[in-house]
Amino acid sequence: MTKTNAEKLFETCGCEAVYTCCLYQLRYITGIEPENGCAIIDQTGGTLYTDMRYMEAAEKLLKGTDVTPVLYKQDDILKRLASYQSVGVSFDQMSHIEYVTLEKAGVKMVNVDQHISSVMIVKNDWELSNIAKACEIAEEAFNALLPEIKEGMTEKEVAALLEYNMRKRGAQGTSFDTIVAFGAHAAVPHHETGETKLCFGDEILIDFGCKVNGYCSDITRTVLFGDDGKHEEFKKAYAHVLAAHYLAQEKIVAGMTGKEADAIAREYLKENGYGDLFTHSLGHGIGLNIHEAPWVSPKGTLPLQNGMVFSDEPGVYLAGQYGIRIEDTVTLKDGKVKSFMSKTDKNLIIL
Amino acid sequence: MTKTNAEKLFETCGCEAVYTCCLYQLRYITGIEPENGCAIIDQTGGTLYTDMRYMEAAEKLLKGTDVTPVLYKQDDILKRLASYQSVGVSFDQMSHIEYVTLEKAGVKMVNVDQHISSVMIVKNDWELSNIAKACEIAEEAFNALLPEIKEGMTEKEVAALLEYNMRKRGAQGTSFDTIVAFGAHAAVPHHETGETKLCFGDEILIDFGCKVNGYCSDITRTVLFGDDGKHEEFKKAYAHVLAAHYLAQEKIVAGMTGKEADAIAREYLKENGYGDLFTHSLGHGIGLNIHEAPWVSPKGTLPLQNGMVFSDEPGVYLAGQYGIRIEDTVTLKDGKVKSFMSKTDKNLIIL
Repeated sequence: MTKTNAEKLFETCGCEAVYTCCLYQLRYITGIEPENGCAIIDQTGGTLYTDMRYMEAAEKLLKGTDVTPVLYKQDDILKRLASYQSVGVSFDQMSHIEYVTLEKAGVKMVNVDQHISSVMIVKNDWELSNIAKACEIAEEAFNALLPEIKEGMTEKEVAALLEYNMRKRGAQGTSFDTIVAFGAHAAVPHHETGETKLCFGDEILIDFGCKVNGYCSDITRTVLFGDDGKHEEFKKAYAHVLAAHYLAQEKIVAGMTGKEADAIAREYLKENGYGDLFTHSLGHGIGLNIHEAPWVSPKGTLPLQNGMVFSDEPGVYLAGQYGIRIEDTVTLKDGKVKSFMSKTDKNLIIL
Repeated sequence: MTKTNAEKLFETCGCEAVYTCCLYQLRYITGIEPENGCAIIDQTGGTLYTDMRYMEAAEKLLKGTDVTPVLYKQDDILKRLASYQSVGVSFDQMSHIEYVTLEKAGVKMVNVDQHISSVMIVKNDWELSNIAKACEIAEEAFNALLPEIKEGMTEKEVAALLEYNMRKRGAQGTSFDTIVAFGAHAAVPHHETGETKLCFGDEILIDFGCKVNGYCSDITRTVLFGDDGKHEEFKKAYAHVLAAHYLAQEKIVAGMTGKEADAIAREYLKENGYGDLFTHSLGHGIGLNIHEAPWVSPKGTLPLQNGMVFSDEPGVYLAGQYGIRIEDTVTLKDGKVKSFMSKTDKNLIIL
């Protein structure tokens, strides 16, 4: 029988109990993210402590699982935690004040950041299906957006429409602040979507994503709003970014480190004269967090494995001129890259 | 001359320097929220450390202010922090791993959670204007939504439309997950917006808000989608919730504790037979966080002051039957309550 997330986490951490009140870890263990809540897992199963507001939903969702919802009482929780010989906690995801409170109560804590990350980094079928759905919604929303883009619209208006397109297709919300950049704004990789109006001949870079059951999608597309004949350099660069994007998907295999994977696109762009213009990593892990391990970057030492999910997003940026980024959310299956994105056209679209 | 937020924070904390990498505190000090960043304030002014992605935006925004943007280098930051006799930090908003890193580097930390909260709890004119704008957008979006609501729409579709209405009016995003509850779902104060379809005669409870420059609005309205003649109890309860809502705005004055303010609505509802059905607090503070101090609840010991912003949201909930909540975001000015909401009709709307 397949192990539950609570079981996997408990077994990997190797402590008498695991405790968390971190929202994404609660989502991983229980499927919900109560604003006030925490979970304890021990060998008897999991307990979700939460307040009245979430109780009805929790009871419904957790019926028949290995996690039991219980009303939150801090004294009971501290007493229970203090009774264990060792409690695995995440130093990275707990506040210092929480650490102090637990320490005062006599809780014997062990940092299990790495254990939790190592479990969560490989996605099970249910997790992959949520990410696939979040990717599908994002692509369909983008396709619906393209004919809605009109001259004179602001970056914010385009973002609003795209987000609405995702939301009405069932997205829970955005997975991060949507980036819409017109013209030379696209040369700023982290441009803040603003009030700039779209003009004929502008390029449009859109970096966006949504959530389904807490799981994220991440996608970037770059298109032209009409061709004013001044985009020869842009078009050449686009072709190379797209080639680097595909090359990474062809050549990345399980067992490669993040650094080796990143180098595939980086070397290609360097050889073609864009080395200095590719100013960020090739990718990052995607799951309940929009940015998580594995890091597909020059600093990525971890070998990529089947079931990991990450972005393939080479980009080139020429300040004041143009910026191009083409990004898919992908996974490794049977040792090879499988993209979640097949519904949008990555050849240069001229609206 | 008016003090900047960086100055106010520095002076209140009483340490040789103040350090934070908490997003909302960075927003308070610098006006932006870089994903990777931190700030140090000392008597010479503030420094925002962030990476290349945010540098251009930071330089533009911080030009002429008392905060200087600098490229993030962890070693430099740790060395600088270790050179101070005392560094104010927020134990509540720093991770334990960050605390450990700073401690190892020899940083002499002092917990200034309370000091930071005491400065941020009173809003300046610029902050109030952002909250006012976020409230205006929310109300206008709600008014635009009402004629768009049709039989058969799902809760999620209504939420999507409302969020789009806010976004296209300039909202940065939602201030929390929009709650749309049809019929008896409204009896669950924290209902998760779902796929339920709207029927004639349903009540609709909508709790929502948006952000402008990081500052939140929070509003709840309850309406009827047609009158099927089965809402006598609902209508009676609605009248009492509305009376409690107005009574709180009339009677709350500066100097009252959160508990005394809460009691105004609570006593009224109790006297009218709804005591057991008002299952939450009257309100919570609103600012860069959707839930922050002051707490307008039976546990609120802090006296309310001019410039504080909080919600006035009495509610009554009868399980399986109905739920009613009427909420404004309000502030205290010249000792009295001033609501940010005047554009929506709070008398019972029957669509």
